[in-house]
Amino acid sequence: MQTDINHCFDKLCPASIAVIGASSNASEIGWVKRLQNFGYPGKIYPINPKAKVIHGLQAYANICDVPDSIDYAILNIPALSTPQAMRDCAVKGIPFVHCYTAGFSESGTEVGKQLEIELAQIANNNGIRLLGPNCMGIYCPESGMTFSEDFPKEKGRIAFVSQSGAEASRLILLCQDVNLNFSKVISYGNAADLNETDFLEYLAGDTKTDVIGLYVEGIKNGHRFMSAIRRCMERKPVIILKAGLTENGAGAAISHTASFTGSQSVWQAFFRQTGAISVQTIDEAADTVQGLTRLQKLRGKCVALIGRGGGIGVVAVDICERAGLKVPPFSDVTRQQLAQIRPDPGASLRNPVEPKLGMEGAGEFYLCGLPVIDEDTETDVILIQMAVDVYGGHTTDLVQNVSEAAYALCAAADSLKKPVAVALFTGGHTDTVLAAAAARDILTKSGIAVFSGIEAAAKAISKVYYYQSRKME
Amino acid sequence: MQTDINHCFDKLCPASIAVIGASSNASEIGWVKRLQNFGYPGKIYPINPKAKVIHGLQAYANICDVPDSIDYAILNIPALSTPQAMRDCAVKGIPFVHCYTAGFSESGTEVGKQLEIELAQIANNNGIRLLGPNCMGIYCPESGMTFSEDFPKEKGRIAFVSQSGAEASRLILLCQDVNLNFSKVISYGNAADLNETDFLEYLAGDTKTDVIGLYVEGIKNGHRFMSAIRRCMERKPVIILKAGLTENGAGAAISHTASFTGSQSVWQAFFRQTGAISVQTIDEAADTVQGLTRLQKLRGKCVALIGRGGGIGVVAVDICERAGLKVPPFSDVTRQQLAQIRPDPGASLRNPVEPKLGMEGAGEFYLCGLPVIDEDTETDVILIQMAVDVYGGHTTDLVQNVSEAAYALCAAADSLKKPVAVALFTGGHTDTVLAAAAARDILTKSGIAVFSGIEAAAKAISKVYYYQSRKME
Repeated sequence: MQTDINHCFDKLCPASIAVIGASSNASEIGWVKRLQNFGYPGKIYPINPKAKVIHGLQAYANICDVPDSIDYAILNIPALSTPQAMRDCAVKGIPFVHCYTAGFSESGTEVGKQLEIELAQIANNNGIRLLGPNCMGIYCPESGMTFSEDFPKEKGRIAFVSQSGAEASRLILLCQDVNLNFSKVISYGNAADLNETDFLEYLAGDTKTDVIGLYVEGIKNGHRFMSAIRRCMERKPVIILKAGLTENGAGAAISHTASFTGSQSVWQAFFRQTGAISVQTIDEAADTVQGLTRLQKLRGKCVALIGRGGGIGVVAVDICERAGLKVPPFSDVTRQQLAQIRPDPGASLRNPVEPKLGMEGAGEFYLCGLPVIDEDTETDVILIQMAVDVYGGHTTDLVQNVSEAAYALCAAADSLKKPVAVALFTGGHTDTVLAAAAARDILTKSGIAVFSGIEAAAKAISKVYYYQSRKME
Repeated sequence: MQTDINHCFDKLCPASIAVIGASSNASEIGWVKRLQNFGYPGKIYPINPKAKVIHGLQAYANICDVPDSIDYAILNIPALSTPQAMRDCAVKGIPFVHCYTAGFSESGTEVGKQLEIELAQIANNNGIRLLGPNCMGIYCPESGMTFSEDFPKEKGRIAFVSQSGAEASRLILLCQDVNLNFSKVISYGNAADLNETDFLEYLAGDTKTDVIGLYVEGIKNGHRFMSAIRRCMERKPVIILKAGLTENGAGAAISHTASFTGSQSVWQAFFRQTGAISVQTIDEAADTVQGLTRLQKLRGKCVALIGRGGGIGVVAVDICERAGLKVPPFSDVTRQQLAQIRPDPGASLRNPVEPKLGMEGAGEFYLCGLPVIDEDTETDVILIQMAVDVYGGHTTDLVQNVSEAAYALCAAADSLKKPVAVALFTGGHTDTVLAAAAARDILTKSGIAVFSGIEAAAKAISKVYYYQSRKME
């Protein structure tokens, strides 16, 4: 008999967490200190037979010594000790155990494989739901749970389910850079008990989640997985980074999570049939999450490119068209109106269109030019290239100028019918990087999608269009 | 009768430059001020009928009023005035004119087209070589010529020929970030007289250039162009960013430089036949230039991945294999030796291999582990993931720790037989960006190739391998 998964997750605000194998080293940031630093509001019970007090909390030699009831336990002890700890958790009546420890089936050893089977059996026989082994566990800002104290404390509406803790961490930090936050992130490792499908089934009905991301190497039950994805897709988009699809990628996945990765053709068919959105890197996942969150007004694939003409504009058009988008010329009406705003000789008004030089000129153009382009019948999305690098050497206060242009863009975008995305090219100089960071912060806080370049933007827009057009079918 | 192109370029250290249409506005950075700030060592003659002195130099009303001989003139006057200025240059006997002014054939107007024909005729009839119109001209650190005062003053061994001044500028700045410099960069715009092929013919024999890059929208004479590329490729690699190959990209190119862009299939055949290296963005061009410069020891396509295992490692393997590389498992001997250096449970030794956590652990591994991997029979290139972001929150002095790891890597790489490349993942936080910038500077000054991520690194390595393997055929 196992605890119902929805019941478990609705209790993802555990009132108490036991850390079995709490580090007694005061200078080390272990699970106890991490939860404290992050502001976990519930009770924490450090379990360590060699310590009386850990980070100011009373420590217990064994979980069974704790006088109160416990909702959730984290195992941070050597793999060989985990079965006994699980049995102790069963005695104590703990419904949810996260096994952080590695050294199970992913080690490739017979001992590791047997230990993992044993853990799953103990969990199953005692109504415990087991997360892991070999995983980072849960980040849920709403409940104050985390596996890194550096993660944002703000909650959002994105969920991420990941067989890799490192990829989950990277996604969280990439999204933080663009002011996007999470409802919950689950790093689930070897999936001895709870697996990707359990989480997807829960998230399909989770009213606190609008977009679901998944990093997966192998799945446990293809049929059930497909049904879960379909159920999610009826209500919200699912982005999947399927890792280990190349020959040696599959080999690497086996030594990571002992996963069977499946064939290219099976997965291609899966994506075609379900409409789930495929990405190949975690950067692409972050970009797509942002696109799905901030470009919901997208209704077609025609891009108006603003910001750099010349060769950079030509290359940008090529990049967009290669990503499956279109950059058609503006209508005659639009061009005539733009010519009044931008009368300089040599300014391209065809699409792409160049604002005046400098960030001041750009800000002015956003306010006057974007409403004109918003009315263009050939335009579905406005993509703005802010090339901070080229203003690097000529401006006394780059951060201020770029920020002012960003504020002008926020003001202009607010009244547009069509979605606006920004490709922010920064270069590697400290001053341009800082100016770009300031602009990114201003724009994303205002809900404008900001990407690291035209390629990233074009890919994300294309994926949003794919999702929206399938939904409308 | 036209001046010989080699003669022109060997004189690319003009002893004197006239700026026809020099700005008399003291606060504006025009051509005169730009050359002064950059440190051009020759004489500058401002031509402006309304000024006596410009930026401390005597100004002349007309080029013919200058008492000395002049090697090079820059036209910065309205398009309609350029034919008369060209005739004046002819009278004055100036061999080389750069027409910066726009508003010629690229404007799409009949007047513009006729003006361009007229300029070319005057040049041709008077033995003047004309660069442009509608272009930024020449950046040659050795001779102190530039079109931006922000460009590096150090000379290097890369040449770039570009129909786009903006793309040329971006390449120069991207290369500056990784301490790569140029022999000469030529932005040539509409190519009314001198075109891409003239420059390629010159650069094939230029002993100061090892790698040639080309941004081109349209070419003037396919047959001559192909011969020039072949001649270059016999001696040094040529990288080509062919812009305007998509439907609307071609349209954008016409309004940029009035170029006929040609068809996809013709260009595909061209690349196949010549072996010239095709890139699609200027970032890719910069990465490929760096690869060709710093990974010359590459002899095969097998990558040893160092630095992140787990999901990040699996995805990195997929990325490399999708780029046409291989990430085979290390030999048993290598794995046994690595197990002694990296005995922790859970550490992947298969390939990818993880150093110990933290930058200190990384530095230690570079010194002990890389010599082992260098001996691995399955390895052709060592690709190191430095993920600065994941050390962001735990280190008191991130810049110092990351720098120390970078120095350790430089020391280790120095004695290796196989080439080393680094993929530097930074995230968007100011502290990680600064730490990554410090590491990039240390590594690239030591001649190690540094890329912005695994995808960029894998693409560049793949292109270098393509070039090297064709050369060995």
